[in-house]
Amino acid sequence: MIYMDHSATAPVRKEVFEVMEPYFTKSFGNASTFYSLGREAKAGMEEARENVAKLIGANNDEIIFTSGGTESDNIAIQGIAYKLNNAGKGNHIITSAIEHPAVMETCSALEKKGFEVTYLPVYEEGIVKVEDLKSAIKEETILITIMHANNEIGTIQPIAEIGKIAKENNIKFHSDAVQSVGKIPVDVNELNVDLLSISSHKIYGPKGVGALYIRKRTRLEPILYGGGQEKDLSPGTENVAGIVGLGEACRLAKEELDENIPYITNLRNKLIDGILNSVEKSYINGNIEKRLPGNINFRFTGIEGESLVLMLDAKGIDGSTGSACSSKKLTASHVLKAIGLEDVDSHGSLRLTIGPENTEEEVDTVIKEIPPIVEKLRSMSSIWEKEESLLKDNTKRCDI
Amino acid sequence: MIYMDHSATAPVRKEVFEVMEPYFTKSFGNASTFYSLGREAKAGMEEARENVAKLIGANNDEIIFTSGGTESDNIAIQGIAYKLNNAGKGNHIITSAIEHPAVMETCSALEKKGFEVTYLPVYEEGIVKVEDLKSAIKEETILITIMHANNEIGTIQPIAEIGKIAKENNIKFHSDAVQSVGKIPVDVNELNVDLLSISSHKIYGPKGVGALYIRKRTRLEPILYGGGQEKDLSPGTENVAGIVGLGEACRLAKEELDENIPYITNLRNKLIDGILNSVEKSYINGNIEKRLPGNINFRFTGIEGESLVLMLDAKGIDGSTGSACSSKKLTASHVLKAIGLEDVDSHGSLRLTIGPENTEEEVDTVIKEIPPIVEKLRSMSSIWEKEESLLKDNTKRCDI
Repeated sequence: MIYMDHSATAPVRKEVFEVMEPYFTKSFGNASTFYSLGREAKAGMEEARENVAKLIGANNDEIIFTSGGTESDNIAIQGIAYKLNNAGKGNHIITSAIEHPAVMETCSALEKKGFEVTYLPVYEEGIVKVEDLKSAIKEETILITIMHANNEIGTIQPIAEIGKIAKENNIKFHSDAVQSVGKIPVDVNELNVDLLSISSHKIYGPKGVGALYIRKRTRLEPILYGGGQEKDLSPGTENVAGIVGLGEACRLAKEELDENIPYITNLRNKLIDGILNSVEKSYINGNIEKRLPGNINFRFTGIEGESLVLMLDAKGIDGSTGSACSSKKLTASHVLKAIGLEDVDSHGSLRLTIGPENTEEEVDTVIKEIPPIVEKLRSMSSIWEKEESLLKDNTKRCDI
Repeated sequence: MIYMDHSATAPVRKEVFEVMEPYFTKSFGNASTFYSLGREAKAGMEEARENVAKLIGANNDEIIFTSGGTESDNIAIQGIAYKLNNAGKGNHIITSAIEHPAVMETCSALEKKGFEVTYLPVYEEGIVKVEDLKSAIKEETILITIMHANNEIGTIQPIAEIGKIAKENNIKFHSDAVQSVGKIPVDVNELNVDLLSISSHKIYGPKGVGALYIRKRTRLEPILYGGGQEKDLSPGTENVAGIVGLGEACRLAKEELDENIPYITNLRNKLIDGILNSVEKSYINGNIEKRLPGNINFRFTGIEGESLVLMLDAKGIDGSTGSACSSKKLTASHVLKAIGLEDVDSHGSLRLTIGPENTEEEVDTVIKEIPPIVEKLRSMSSIWEKEESLLKDNTKRCDI
């Protein structure tokens, strides 16, 4: 199998699994109990907290563990929105048009509850403009939430600049960094963020666990209530094995980042060149430079991305049409819409996301397999026929 | 080690771990993707859903997976409260005075948001009276949330009767069954519940995963927003390995329930008799009959439970003072307060919760170890001195 859907999820690495294992069966204590077994679990958790903090340049006590990126986003956004709105600070939130559903749907739910939300455009490049942000800020703005790197097209937002503006205007700033942490350098102080969401399973840790960075003295209104764990923000018995796995995944990510970035970028560029050179009317969605090292989002005119994914699957190649979280919805991707694609074009997209375990041979195989599949799908496509006749029409017109 | 803190958590069983393992490293797909690897993950999840449903007599599509009992309780209680209150049905909630913090704190947060909450008393027995419930119901009552079995004293509430009354009055009924599922028979139809919370790590599954039973046609307002997973109520990438583990834990629990109940009850009774007969001024908190098979909650006059727990720990025996979720708070247990104990008495409590892997030899060891520790602690205790002199005074008075 050639796995190229790393933005959807990644396997748990052997090293990570080995560190987790004892916490399932041996050091299985409830980290909130105070006898040896509980303290053992607690110690494992705190080591993990340090590894997460180190990866993003934070202090240990600025990290809380959650059940994943989605919970992190919800705790951060709802938490700030309610806290500051209750304190009479305002009800205006600024976000972008290409956020992950965990941010998008949270903002949309807040709109229904009386908040006002501005969705910044990202243009063809898939990147917000700092000028737009500046114009959107008003007296009532309490929160800016803009993702670090996009999950579909991999574009990287100018987070440090946005954070600077947020700071100058005394507005809290959250960034969903689920796709960037462990893939590119992320430092909470350089980025000027107050809150930052992390997911474990995108960086070879287990599913069902994540973290939220909360800058010192940032107060949140809780959305879940219980036994007080994780600063009262993510209560419930701590998922110790999962947390320990996330910690180890962060430790490894930090250690290997410098090596991984050029390796993955190189594979990515080879794959892009290979396909664009061999498939006519194939394109890359979003800015090609300001982009995650491993992200490719192709667009093939005249075909259905879903059929392409299934035919690649049959060849043992795993890619996706877009985000896993919305892959079952039949609506077009809001990200591809936001960069100006028509529905028909956005349905012809294929996301391939590369990880450090992918090899050059695998890239060669993918370059070989995709063109005949695209050709076959186009031969069966009514859209492509139109496209072709349009081409012919154009040719005719040129002849005249 | 003699582990007798099963109400706090339990190890992941070998059989459960083996079923989970491939989902970390091999079948690691994102269950929301539609290619083979994703479908494999999805299939594992759906088998787990069936096993959870079977254990509690539900339909598969009435089960959603969550990050644990706390999230389940929050989704259920906040979900019904907001849904029905928004629909103008009322703002009154009835609960008991001995709920888990996940229910207690959620109700308390709702009070601050304009809901009215009635906390039913449980008297010395630790059990709510159906008559009290009937008197508490009013026009505005939208939700009753009462736990099945208590986490500290193990008392079992008359859920089926409460459910019948809820139904007759057209009020939604939620029960936190985190402590009862897998320990005693739980059938959602016999119990007449609309919503029921389940935790995995209490029944030898992994931490960080749980489930919520939601009776067909019961509508909830979501509290977390994201990619639409689990009926839009617990969104975020599914914790497939955890879910599969919970499923297997439920399958095993169902298979072994009939055998475990008499075995555990027998050990429990032996331990109770052994201690009550050898330690003067020792008592059992809460009703002794309507109680979980494995639960013991001792009260030893004149000592600090925490010191007892630490001294037992030094002997390799793991017990606790009360709930793990609140064991670090210095306040007295709200449960022991609710059954009428003074602070000084509730601080002298020890919870031992027995599981099927405990043996008769272990019980014998505990019966042997506890009395000298209690005696030692009493010899150092100022409260006990008073108690003793009081005894002497009494004796004197009797002499007269």
